[in-house]
Amino acid sequence: MNRVALITGSTSGIGLGIARHFAENQYNIMFHGLETNGLEIATQIGAKNNVEVAFSNANLMHSNQVEKLVEQTYNTFGRIDVLINNAGIQYVSPIDKFPNEKYEAIIALNMNASFYASKAAWKYMKAQSFGRIINISSVHGLRASEYKTAYVTAKHGVIGMTKVLGLEGAPYNITCNAICPGYVRTPLVEKQIPDQAKSHNMSEEDVITKVMLKKQAVKSFVPIEALADMALLLSKESSSTITGTEFVLDGGWTAQ
Amino acid sequence: MNRVALITGSTSGIGLGIARHFAENQYNIMFHGLETNGLEIATQIGAKNNVEVAFSNANLMHSNQVEKLVEQTYNTFGRIDVLINNAGIQYVSPIDKFPNEKYEAIIALNMNASFYASKAAWKYMKAQSFGRIINISSVHGLRASEYKTAYVTAKHGVIGMTKVLGLEGAPYNITCNAICPGYVRTPLVEKQIPDQAKSHNMSEEDVITKVMLKKQAVKSFVPIEALADMALLLSKESSSTITGTEFVLDGGWTAQ
Amino acid sequence: MNRVALITGSTSGIGLGIARHFAENQYNIMFHGLETNGLEIATQIGAKNNVEVAFSNANLMHSNQVEKLVEQTYNTFGRIDVLINNAGIQYVSPIDKFPNEKYEAIIALNMNASFYASKAAWKYMKAQSFGRIINISSVHGLRASEYKTAYVTAKHGVIGMTKVLGLEGAPYNITCNAICPGYVRTPLVEKQIPDQAKSHNMSEEDVITKVMLKKQAVKSFVPIEALADMALLLSKESSSTITGTEFVLDGGWTAQ
Amino acid sequence: MNRVALITGSTSGIGLGIARHFAENQYNIMFHGLETNGLEIATQIGAKNNVEVAFSNANLMHSNQVEKLVEQTYNTFGRIDVLINNAGIQYVSPIDKFPNEKYEAIIALNMNASFYASKAAWKYMKAQSFGRIINISSVHGLRASEYKTAYVTAKHGVIGMTKVLGLEGAPYNITCNAICPGYVRTPLVEKQIPDQAKSHNMSEEDVITKVMLKKQAVKSFVPIEALADMALLLSKESSSTITGTEFVLDGGWTAQ
Repeated sequence: MNRVALITGSTSGIGLGIARHFAENQYNIMFHGLETNGLEIATQIGAKNNVEVAFSNANLMHSNQVEKLVEQTYNTFGRIDVLINNAGIQYVSPIDKFPNEKYEAIIALNMNASFYASKAAWKYMKAQSFGRIINISSVHGLRASEYKTAYVTAKHGVIGMTKVLGLEGAPYNITCNAICPGYVRTPLVEKQIPDQAKSHNMSEEDVITKVMLKKQAVKSFVPIEALADMALLLSKESSSTITGTEFVLDGGWTAQ
Repeated sequence: MNRVALITGSTSGIGLGIARHFAENQYNIMFHGLETNGLEIATQIGAKNNVEVAFSNANLMHSNQVEKLVEQTYNTFGRIDVLINNAGIQYVSPIDKFPNEKYEAIIALNMNASFYASKAAWKYMKAQSFGRIINISSVHGLRASEYKTAYVTAKHGVIGMTKVLGLEGAPYNITCNAICPGYVRTPLVEKQIPDQAKSHNMSEEDVITKVMLKKQAVKSFVPIEALADMALLLSKESSSTITGTEFVLDGGWTAQ
Repeated sequence: MNRVALITGSTSGIGLGIARHFAENQYNIMFHGLETNGLEIATQIGAKNNVEVAFSNANLMHSNQVEKLVEQTYNTFGRIDVLINNAGIQYVSPIDKFPNEKYEAIIALNMNASFYASKAAWKYMKAQSFGRIINISSVHGLRASEYKTAYVTAKHGVIGMTKVLGLEGAPYNITCNAICPGYVRTPLVEKQIPDQAKSHNMSEEDVITKVMLKKQAVKSFVPIEALADMALLLSKESSSTITGTEFVLDGGWTAQ
Repeated sequence: MNRVALITGSTSGIGLGIARHFAENQYNIMFHGLETNGLEIATQIGAKNNVEVAFSNANLMHSNQVEKLVEQTYNTFGRIDVLINNAGIQYVSPIDKFPNEKYEAIIALNMNASFYASKAAWKYMKAQSFGRIINISSVHGLRASEYKTAYVTAKHGVIGMTKVLGLEGAPYNITCNAICPGYVRTPLVEKQIPDQAKSHNMSEEDVITKVMLKKQAVKSFVPIEALADMALLLSKESSSTITGTEFVLDGGWTAQ
């Protein structure tokens, strides 16, 4: 029987890349995201890899929708082995002008949704004596950048949550870890490159290496493939002693 | 003219100890807390040290009350030099039984209130070209304990917030730091000792060294005096380059 | 053409397990260790996996022997893709009785040898535009235990070295990372179990869970397989943006 | 009776600033350094503050000279309350060209001397039931910069050593902590400013803010006064629960 992974925010970007990799490795996948063609994306990947898939566009800003998403996963597939809390948003502003509702939205989605989802998945994982919770945090779970109060706060909070769940899961073969990427070339980032090149009056290559990747020693984006590899490693049965910690893939950002 | 400190949760425990120390060092103090005799406490300390004081029992669960508290401080004293985000609550439960509303209350008070207060104080501090924000985080801002998902998440979040504000404050002589105490002998803790001694069938001394201080190498509570000393040091004019970091006073808890 | 890995201390314990895993994945291996049957071990693994091997029993306490080992690897195989600094020793004593020569030996082997080896391999890796340096540090590269001054100092030092080399390697596709295991069931540990059971007057199982794994939340040894998996992941071409950081596999030790 | 502090490297720079502050606070001081007028410096400070002083120019590259320095301190003053391991050197080179003897000298002075000194002081501190060991590490005890392999390795090593001694000292009221400064305006740095301005073809102010303080958010040097304040706080009797940790004064360097 295939293992089952619920991956939030998996119809684009990092989440999609991870979902593909897990499907290729014979996981059934509960897709989730706001893309209108989410079901189509899910179905194609399922067909290509001969695994079962489902799709939800739950609004993870609300605890009850998070809980329903987890239950739907269990009801659909009969188990839930891996939960990847990946969905997130960003907003940038100096602290004195940071809108309260933006702060609250980021905390709700990037941090609280991980709490509600992990809590809801816990009873199934406990009953299975197997669970792997992977929080996609960020280099901003460990370091700050200006104007990102809400994001950095939420991502640090997730690191704390990861440690507690790592400890609490120990007797049940439930692990919880965080992956902390540096700058990843997602479609969102892709679109910003020409815009920033224009506004900075720089070449696209200079925007990438001098603006976007300024804090990385390695002047390349972190490939989604590397994140997916790491997530898959953490999901293995033999990874049961890897827990409560963070895996940083950041081109040397945090080293300096 | 005296410097002015707003200290949340300052009518008992750590906050009260810090407030006393700042009053002794000629700060005017905005006291805040839920103690019914809060005004009395404030008045006595003011009289004893010949400094001005005021008191508020604002409910920091609500962003608008946090904002009003900051404005009231400014309106009362004409400036706000030091903001100490100290008020906090705790709740302990395994993750699968952790009530959503308890989680939300802890995030609201222990983390979000620091955001609203810092944001509200920022414009005054910027105008003064002087500000010292001190977040009383915890050893749980850096490490986890079982059954404390909400508390550890919030305290880690505050560490992230501290770093961002440290960076953003740099051009304005606004610093932001966190103090991370281990186990402190507050009135709350004091009351638990005989109860725990009874329930564990241990002497009070054993409850302290073997249960409460189990994770500390130094088998004494961290004295509030040491926290107050550190807060005062961080508030000095000459501490303008100390920012965005955490000061751990924990009897060796995090060292191991 | 096969990739080439030099793994110090690879004729027993963690190093041997990693070497096996790399051989199974078609790396040619330069084995190194003090086992008298080291050549035999190397030859068997080579034959079984149809990869080329060589063996050295260089004394890594001396910089010139470290340098020769690296050159010998290059001269034998024509390249050196992966360097795993794994050899190490331990000594336990209260600080005031810690023999200087024990301290110096631990610093020499557990820390300085990694410097000499990395330095010697650098020019080859630079010329190849490919290099993966993996330092087997320890949970003691991040946390302390009593009576282990030399070991904890050396392992922390290696973490620092890892960060510098991560930064310096960035332009050359040379990465440097550390793996930080908790308690691993090596032959050395294996032998201690019955002895400790006797001396503590405990069952072997109690010695494992209550003495050895006291600081881990997960009450199992970290399997060598998990370390080998991680080392292999870090050695991939697609891991070129993973650098200057540490990968902790410790059963929740550092989380608390 | 005055408390007694031994401060290595105290005839110039950071060490001298700390020594002055301790003398002003009525500590007797064992000065140490390579300045030819070291005795004169010591005597003047002693006279000005009416405290006892002595001076040594021991070569801390050798364990036996370190041990003699500690013994001389004890024999001169009858006790040794505070040991500040401050002496250090720097050398900068790409890894593949880093001279072994430079690496070894930096490890010897910046790291090993702290081991020998702490070990030698331990028996006196234990007998006194009071000891405060303060290691002047660096932001480079926590983060790396290119071309500083030896320095970063040594400073990280010292952080590890600090944690172990913090744990081992707990039963004896011996604490051990590290102070991690960012960029400090020492005489050495002072001299580099005009040279660097010339070589970069920049104004002196630009050299300071854009080259030297590039990684700090606060564009001012960390004042020695702030380091001295922190060292004095850590030396207090009431600081007995502050141990095994690091105090970062770095203008926001490590926050980002």
